Amino acid sequence: MITVGVIGYGYWGPNLVRNLAEAKGARVGFVSDLREERLAQVRVKYPGVAVGTDALALLADPSVDAVVIATPVSTHFELALAALQAGKHVLVEKPLTSRAEQAERLIEEADRRGLVLMVDHTFVYTSAVEKMRELTVAGELGDIYYYDSVRINLGLFQHDVNVLWDLAVHDLSIMDYVLGRQPVAVSATGLAHVQGRPHNIGYMTMFFEDRLIAHVHVNWLSPVKVRRTLLGGSRRMILFDDLEASEKIKIYDRGISVNPSSENVYQMLVGYRTGDMWAPQLALREALSTEVAHFLDCITNSRTPLTDGHAGLRVVRLLEAASASMDAQGRLVDIARETPA
Amino acid sequence: MITVGVIGYGYWGPNLVRNLAEAKGARVGFVSDLREERLAQVRVKYPGVAVGTDALALLADPSVDAVVIATPVSTHFELALAALQAGKHVLVEKPLTSRAEQAERLIEEADRRGLVLMVDHTFVYTSAVEKMRELTVAGELGDIYYYDSVRINLGLFQHDVNVLWDLAVHDLSIMDYVLGRQPVAVSATGLAHVQGRPHNIGYMTMFFEDRLIAHVHVNWLSPVKVRRTLLGGSRRMILFDDLEASEKIKIYDRGISVNPSSENVYQMLVGYRTGDMWAPQLALREALSTEVAHFLDCITNSRTPLTDGHAGLRVVRLLEAASASMDAQGRLVDIARETPA
Amino acid sequence: MITVGVIGYGYWGPNLVRNLAEAKGARVGFVSDLREERLAQVRVKYPGVAVGTDALALLADPSVDAVVIATPVSTHFELALAALQAGKHVLVEKPLTSRAEQAERLIEEADRRGLVLMVDHTFVYTSAVEKMRELTVAGELGDIYYYDSVRINLGLFQHDVNVLWDLAVHDLSIMDYVLGRQPVAVSATGLAHVQGRPHNIGYMTMFFEDRLIAHVHVNWLSPVKVRRTLLGGSRRMILFDDLEASEKIKIYDRGISVNPSSENVYQMLVGYRTGDMWAPQLALREALSTEVAHFLDCITNSRTPLTDGHAGLRVVRLLEAASASMDAQGRLVDIARETPA
Amino acid sequence: MITVGVIGYGYWGPNLVRNLAEAKGARVGFVSDLREERLAQVRVKYPGVAVGTDALALLADPSVDAVVIATPVSTHFELALAALQAGKHVLVEKPLTSRAEQAERLIEEADRRGLVLMVDHTFVYTSAVEKMRELTVAGELGDIYYYDSVRINLGLFQHDVNVLWDLAVHDLSIMDYVLGRQPVAVSATGLAHVQGRPHNIGYMTMFFEDRLIAHVHVNWLSPVKVRRTLLGGSRRMILFDDLEASEKIKIYDRGISVNPSSENVYQMLVGYRTGDMWAPQLALREALSTEVAHFLDCITNSRTPLTDGHAGLRVVRLLEAASASMDAQGRLVDIARETPA
Repeated sequence: MITVGVIGYGYWGPNLVRNLAEAKGARVGFVSDLREERLAQVRVKYPGVAVGTDALALLADPSVDAVVIATPVSTHFELALAALQAGKHVLVEKPLTSRAEQAERLIEEADRRGLVLMVDHTFVYTSAVEKMRELTVAGELGDIYYYDSVRINLGLFQHDVNVLWDLAVHDLSIMDYVLGRQPVAVSATGLAHVQGRPHNIGYMTMFFEDRLIAHVHVNWLSPVKVRRTLLGGSRRMILFDDLEASEKIKIYDRGISVNPSSENVYQMLVGYRTGDMWAPQLALREALSTEVAHFLDCITNSRTPLTDGHAGLRVVRLLEAASASMDAQGRLVDIARETPA
Repeated sequence: MITVGVIGYGYWGPNLVRNLAEAKGARVGFVSDLREERLAQVRVKYPGVAVGTDALALLADPSVDAVVIATPVSTHFELALAALQAGKHVLVEKPLTSRAEQAERLIEEADRRGLVLMVDHTFVYTSAVEKMRELTVAGELGDIYYYDSVRINLGLFQHDVNVLWDLAVHDLSIMDYVLGRQPVAVSATGLAHVQGRPHNIGYMTMFFEDRLIAHVHVNWLSPVKVRRTLLGGSRRMILFDDLEASEKIKIYDRGISVNPSSENVYQMLVGYRTGDMWAPQLALREALSTEVAHFLDCITNSRTPLTDGHAGLRVVRLLEAASASMDAQGRLVDIARETPA
Repeated sequence: MITVGVIGYGYWGPNLVRNLAEAKGARVGFVSDLREERLAQVRVKYPGVAVGTDALALLADPSVDAVVIATPVSTHFELALAALQAGKHVLVEKPLTSRAEQAERLIEEADRRGLVLMVDHTFVYTSAVEKMRELTVAGELGDIYYYDSVRINLGLFQHDVNVLWDLAVHDLSIMDYVLGRQPVAVSATGLAHVQGRPHNIGYMTMFFEDRLIAHVHVNWLSPVKVRRTLLGGSRRMILFDDLEASEKIKIYDRGISVNPSSENVYQMLVGYRTGDMWAPQLALREALSTEVAHFLDCITNSRTPLTDGHAGLRVVRLLEAASASMDAQGRLVDIARETPA
Repeated sequence: MITVGVIGYGYWGPNLVRNLAEAKGARVGFVSDLREERLAQVRVKYPGVAVGTDALALLADPSVDAVVIATPVSTHFELALAALQAGKHVLVEKPLTSRAEQAERLIEEADRRGLVLMVDHTFVYTSAVEKMRELTVAGELGDIYYYDSVRINLGLFQHDVNVLWDLAVHDLSIMDYVLGRQPVAVSATGLAHVQGRPHNIGYMTMFFEDRLIAHVHVNWLSPVKVRRTLLGGSRRMILFDDLEASEKIKIYDRGISVNPSSENVYQMLVGYRTGDMWAPQLALREALSTEVAHFLDCITNSRTPLTDGHAGLRVVRLLEAASASMDAQGRLVDIARETPA
């Protein structure tokens, strides 16, 4: 039985606590939050769980084996580092940290101590993204040509991070998992419509070493909500629409066929090819439940999480580079690559 | 009665000829095309119209008052210039020319001769775009925050122009008309997936002097067809979906409300506001019919077309700058401005 | 403070208990269910609430002022009658009873004792249905021509009631509230696809005294889920699509215009008229919360519920008549009318 | 080369003439219409075709091998009979005749003379309906449980026929082809909202000898256009949405599984099963072109059309029975069966 402490009981914390409380092999031992009124809710819902406003008390509790951090991003690094130093396994809400070097430091600390460090890239644990990964890895799509995602809605303006850190982080974590390779450079643009606030609209284009391009479009100021990702390959293409109740994933047997032998430049050298569409039945499950079970399994069996510290670092690096490019109106910014250990 | 000659009877030419043939106050006098089999079709459908493979013969025909040019873009300049020099009024398919300086030369020639020079920015003549313009000009949207357009499908790869010149040209011509002001710089990205071919996927961000941003996303390699434009303002926002059979335009009474007096940075300073949605009934009409009538009216009454040479020039400048930026992976490129006469 | 007892903690009971627990002016005092495992859940979630398998003990508890019944329909009558006889106000899940004469008996008992008898026609308390009622009553739709509803999905086959009692009951309760008048006869058809099971597909047409027709289509065996109601009037028409995330209600300024003076029968005498569409912003609220507040208000202030025993009776009469007609393959069955008191 | 005469150049006639003119192995020799202004259009578009207001002249023309009748339904019988008696093969717009006995008479006449008699059930020749037929016949759907169709829009009120003859005729002809068997009884309801006009809203339920039920819903007074057919089977189900640009046909691997061995009536005996969805690529072709080619092939090779006189007769019988039932508010009306020759 793994005892888990949860720091932060705001928007996302309650979902984590509920899934931990229902998970086999775990119990929630401690919940901390700075706000007394949030802790009052924990007391009503989970009478047996210790609560407190002091996260350090939670970290000092020897009965706590693992810590889940669901606080504002600016506090992630300090809390996660303290938790690792206290010998706890750690699961951190996305994005892992505010800066890449912080993520590197956490990875190093977890490695040295043999502790699990995992980032809560929730989408990676959905059956839709799992299916996209599976089809991509199996070569069903052929060569991957592009990844294009739109994530817009009328949303809360964050006061501390720009829209990339709030919304694009989802797309980047999905992309990291599905493509299994990293962009080498990014060009991003965007705008802040409210004086003194971070950018609320953002566009980022990522370049890879080969003929692959990725684009993410995020916006807090759209009258309609859109969650659509296109993954285009030479053989097949996928449309992932997360707002579809069923049929979230549609696979199109469509693409282009190139006829390089033609000598007449006025004839069409590139033809397009259309075929069937197929929407696989996806397992109905809560992603967070799968993710929590994976975290517990990694602790118990000393496994590396799908979304480990390195995944968290790669996403933070992209966000950092994109923010820098956005501030420079699209200037191309190289993405630092991890050197193999 | 204005006698019109049409050069080019390929994909778009037949639509122009049909609308000219049905327009009041005009007759089609001459159709030229390099391909005999295309002319054969004209003979069957329009027995009274002169046909020929030689565009110069058409231009030399003194009975022809006005010339419509519907040929590949690389030939626009030369044909249009010759037509103007032959004293004909000219309507050119979009984009007006391949290079901005060619467009400037045509404007100059038309001005000197007092002839009408018009570019076929067809969307400007749809009732949907007319409605967007009307609401924008009337201030119904408040301050304009962003213009965002997606135009993707599985389409023919052009061999001579990149996807911006083929698809984004529509969005740029709509934007030019609806916003009534010009971007000052562009950052564009994209990729060519077929060796030796032009870019088939493109993203372009345009910056304006004030807090307005525009983005256009075009792709010849999408498994699904999308034609969606969002126009966001401080008071209202518009969704224009050209694939909707009815309700092409939806106006959302949504936006943000900023509360600048709050002193607590942890409180939300920016709230969002939701309200009704409204889809105005749009006139059912063929845009080309309206456009042709406007061309004839401009000739008869010496009026300046809505889509005159300057509109064509502005769009060509954007396409030139965006193509340059795309080749440099997003490098910011300034847009040349017209100096007031 | 009104103390409420809830009988039945199966599918719907937990929603009722949650809303009662959160309502101002009420507390949940007792929950009963035949299944111990269901009660165990109540104990965890609501530690202060008395639980038991014996509904009679709940009814005998003098601290209980009002009883909510969320058990299978075959038990509604007996439990509700016993509750009224024990002097409790009663809210019964839909449909009110299995037979019309049972509903009549409950109305009589509640009247005699001056107790509130209310039926849980939940949809009546949604902001969408409220808007439909409001527009209809205000004459915005003109003369009402038809009410047409489709409610189909892949659903659990009930073993005790046919699909009308499970699904059409929603449409009939909405219709009863929105139209404010009752049909005079019904013709229903349907089929049972599983041997020995009730009808799983049903169609019912209702006739009114004037030029109004209503139709409800329900099906437990549809591969897709549909929840669409059309309300057609001479001036305007409403589409209510309950699966739309926003824009559940769309109001179309469309209809027909009749020109009776025309003498030429070959000319079109009936023209159609199209206009704007409008989707009003609806309040975001849980219907059950509104309903529970209304129940408490009726108790406190001796008011008659919107969905009182008579509303429950009218819907049961329709279901009885429709089931009889369905068994006779569409034979027209008269609907009994309530005689004014 | 088969020479065809076309009687009636109103709404549908031009489509027939155009497809006949483009068909291999045929030429349009004669077009007749009562209205001179319609004939003027034929003269312009098809200079070589004889025209006239007298249909009898067309029938008397010995060069005419086959006659296509596209006139109001009340005139179908007389014209088709005269054409057959003049020795011409005949294709009649749907519905074949106004009364079943007329259709029987035409069948008899064509049989005696060895002439082709075909009815223009256009939908039968679409690739979508062809796919539905193919899957049904191959047993891919399992046992067929239901056929359910909705065909509603804001449409022209006909002055001579009710909405069943105008709209439901399409569904009945599709159903006749796809199911390959006939209903035994019908119960229909509907209403006329305009004084002195035929019913403009109609619902018809059809019963078969086995556990199959069919329902068609038609309405000239709907604010939205719907064209949706559900075909439910024990193994798979089809959704045919004719307004979808692509993916008109979706096949759902969904249904119910019955577990008859369970002894506990409180347990669910009927489970539901969900699986993948699949949208086959359909051939892009104009149905009328396929239909015209089939008509010519039947003439040339003495084949029986897919939509022969008997298919026309079956649909007319259904329309007659349904209209009678509708007038009697849902009274069950038996469908006459053809006695095998």
